[in-house]
Amino acid sequence: MGIVVQKYGGSSVADATGVTRVAQRIVATKQAGHHVVVVVSAMGDTTDELLDLANDISPLPSGRELDMLLTAGERISMALLAMAIGNLGHEARSFTGSQAGVITDSAHGKAKIIDVTPGRIQAAIQDGAIAIVAGFQGVSQSSKDITTLGRGGSDTTAVALAAALQAEVCEIYTDVDGVFTADPRIVPSAQRIPAISYEEMLEMAASGAKILHLRCVEYARRHNMPIHVRSSFSHKTGTWVVDGSKVDSMEQAIISGVAHDRSEAKITVVGVPDKVGEAARIFEAVAAAQINIDMIVQNATVASTGLADISFTLPRADGQTAMAALAVLKDQVGYDTLLYDDGIGKVSLVGAGMRSHPGVSAGFFSALAQAGVNIDMISTSEIRISVIVAEDQVDDAVTAAHARFDLEARDVEAVVYGGSGR
Amino acid sequence: MGIVVQKYGGSSVADATGVTRVAQRIVATKQAGHHVVVVVSAMGDTTDELLDLANDISPLPSGRELDMLLTAGERISMALLAMAIGNLGHEARSFTGSQAGVITDSAHGKAKIIDVTPGRIQAAIQDGAIAIVAGFQGVSQSSKDITTLGRGGSDTTAVALAAALQAEVCEIYTDVDGVFTADPRIVPSAQRIPAISYEEMLEMAASGAKILHLRCVEYARRHNMPIHVRSSFSHKTGTWVVDGSKVDSMEQAIISGVAHDRSEAKITVVGVPDKVGEAARIFEAVAAAQINIDMIVQNATVASTGLADISFTLPRADGQTAMAALAVLKDQVGYDTLLYDDGIGKVSLVGAGMRSHPGVSAGFFSALAQAGVNIDMISTSEIRISVIVAEDQVDDAVTAAHARFDLEARDVEAVVYGGSGR
Repeated sequence: MGIVVQKYGGSSVADATGVTRVAQRIVATKQAGHHVVVVVSAMGDTTDELLDLANDISPLPSGRELDMLLTAGERISMALLAMAIGNLGHEARSFTGSQAGVITDSAHGKAKIIDVTPGRIQAAIQDGAIAIVAGFQGVSQSSKDITTLGRGGSDTTAVALAAALQAEVCEIYTDVDGVFTADPRIVPSAQRIPAISYEEMLEMAASGAKILHLRCVEYARRHNMPIHVRSSFSHKTGTWVVDGSKVDSMEQAIISGVAHDRSEAKITVVGVPDKVGEAARIFEAVAAAQINIDMIVQNATVASTGLADISFTLPRADGQTAMAALAVLKDQVGYDTLLYDDGIGKVSLVGAGMRSHPGVSAGFFSALAQAGVNIDMISTSEIRISVIVAEDQVDDAVTAAHARFDLEARDVEAVVYGGSGR
Repeated sequence: MGIVVQKYGGSSVADATGVTRVAQRIVATKQAGHHVVVVVSAMGDTTDELLDLANDISPLPSGRELDMLLTAGERISMALLAMAIGNLGHEARSFTGSQAGVITDSAHGKAKIIDVTPGRIQAAIQDGAIAIVAGFQGVSQSSKDITTLGRGGSDTTAVALAAALQAEVCEIYTDVDGVFTADPRIVPSAQRIPAISYEEMLEMAASGAKILHLRCVEYARRHNMPIHVRSSFSHKTGTWVVDGSKVDSMEQAIISGVAHDRSEAKITVVGVPDKVGEAARIFEAVAAAQINIDMIVQNATVASTGLADISFTLPRADGQTAMAALAVLKDQVGYDTLLYDDGIGKVSLVGAGMRSHPGVSAGFFSALAQAGVNIDMISTSEIRISVIVAEDQVDDAVTAAHARFDLEARDVEAVVYGGSGR
């Protein structure tokens, strides 16, 4: 009897009705002949409410205590879910991250999973019970203190448990039918992607697709654990995230999808002297402020002045910190001025097929040109092309790219992974 | 450096203001040169709110899952309290019952403490930190599942931890100044009792004084751990609950206090045949329904009929169950009828001094007679006399007894235990 791990997010268990609906779906999976292990997030807005409580008490709460506080959220949802399953006549046992053997490092608020030792989970499912596990949390290997994995951590819990239990699949339930070729709010004709490789999904996640957390996809790729992203409100097949070799190559689209991201800002350092090490000093200062930068462009040095401009993008939330860190450098580096622009957006084309289809960049750029979208910066990976455009042109850019690569015409049923219709 | 264990109830930490106030008191104790271990209950109505959530999901939730759910309450309050202490510049570390080494049996919802192994608490206070421990909860020795001790269990957690840590004192903070000679809402001249023996406090608790849980006092007596019951809203000395030999015998009042209880009902089995074993069958039926009875009176058999009446008191909450259990016996026992009366109250006089002062009962009964209070049933222990009266005469009975034994005239300052004024 195979093991299915299912993860339900906070919106799926926001109230008693949602908890009961999820319980019914879990019981149906059990009755279909699977061992079922469920990972659940805190109900609805519980985590935000607990954060508000903490802020009422202390402006800078200790990470250890904040984790102790926030983990109360999943404790509530998992116990209620176990009760709801019990009410349907099936035995369910809930387990904290610690009880489930989710061992992490000691980085409170952003802990990494080091190991998973799910002995109690295995015992529960061997007893015929459904195991409910608190997402988002674990226990520090060294201090034995309770830790949290950071936002989106429940997906990672689910994949890590699925890998440790050698589950058949990790089902991630959400409020949409899967991963789409573009955000349907921008492109109404966007199609569900039936199957996508880990690599493409990583690029999609890094490019702003919020449906799966980057860490969770990385974990799944490392352990080759199939993820099935699907809706908790329907029984439709969703999107399978699997090893690239399993995505049917005959049906492999050149482009899997168009992602966009409005959360970045651009900083331009104007008039940087063209000396060895100046760029390094700039980026060392930003890195020292614990800021992750995304794209970098350096203009060609103007021969007459010997000066160049360096632009880079970063999370808007870090904009103020970065500007302050760079302002300190003004005299040392000798640049002219700093420009800050948060009116930008990033549009990315992701697809493993572009490895073997050279004309993709050209097609993307010409589609943007025809739509009147000006490209500010460009960066590429083997399976992704990203451009920075004006924020108010993001929708036009996404729509133009989606149309150019015929994404609305995908025959979604032809490429369902495995064909089981699960 | 001695250890002080402090317990704060849910009303003391009902909101951010309360949490901060309690944190200041804890820090003051630490600054006065003590190691401080704090036991805290769930904030305000949190436990009731969680119970409501459970009832929305399932009419009969599993005990294991209910305990998992309810323990989220202390998790929230203890983390917030630790943050508030951190905000005052002191290190605090919160611990669940399980982390604090509170080992229990597996009786979910009413677990008993088997052992306390407070290694992590000792390590925390040796590091100079204040340890915050979740009250009311523990971990089952056999199943490793989370358990709760039942209502009032936080007091027991505090005393058990204090005993295991060999603390100097266990301070139980509440919203009144200590244990009073009577309920001040009934007797405005009631006085705070400065010191009372474990035995008297047990009788007071069993007689309806709600300030300390019976189990907590029993635990303290068994381990000879002094309890100081005091208000979290003032710095006054409260009531010391200590070994009888330490209550100054020169100052020992004959009567410590008058307790009352309006939570009982009376059942009378009318016309029971005077045969060996009939009473046993009646009480076996009640015991089989898991009901604890309190007082029992059997009337003298009427010679002409050979029938007697048997009356007993029990918690009103169990009244319906008991009547149903007894109705089944009607034909077997052959009694005439069952009477149920919940318009009763119990008034108890408690005092170790009555051991050596024979006239107490007579004085109590004559005071009640002068106040026009009719006595329905009587039971006594070595240091307690209890009577059942009509519920609407409870206040008169308490007032009359209080006046008769001069309880309002106690010189409270003369008998402060230890005299330290703590």
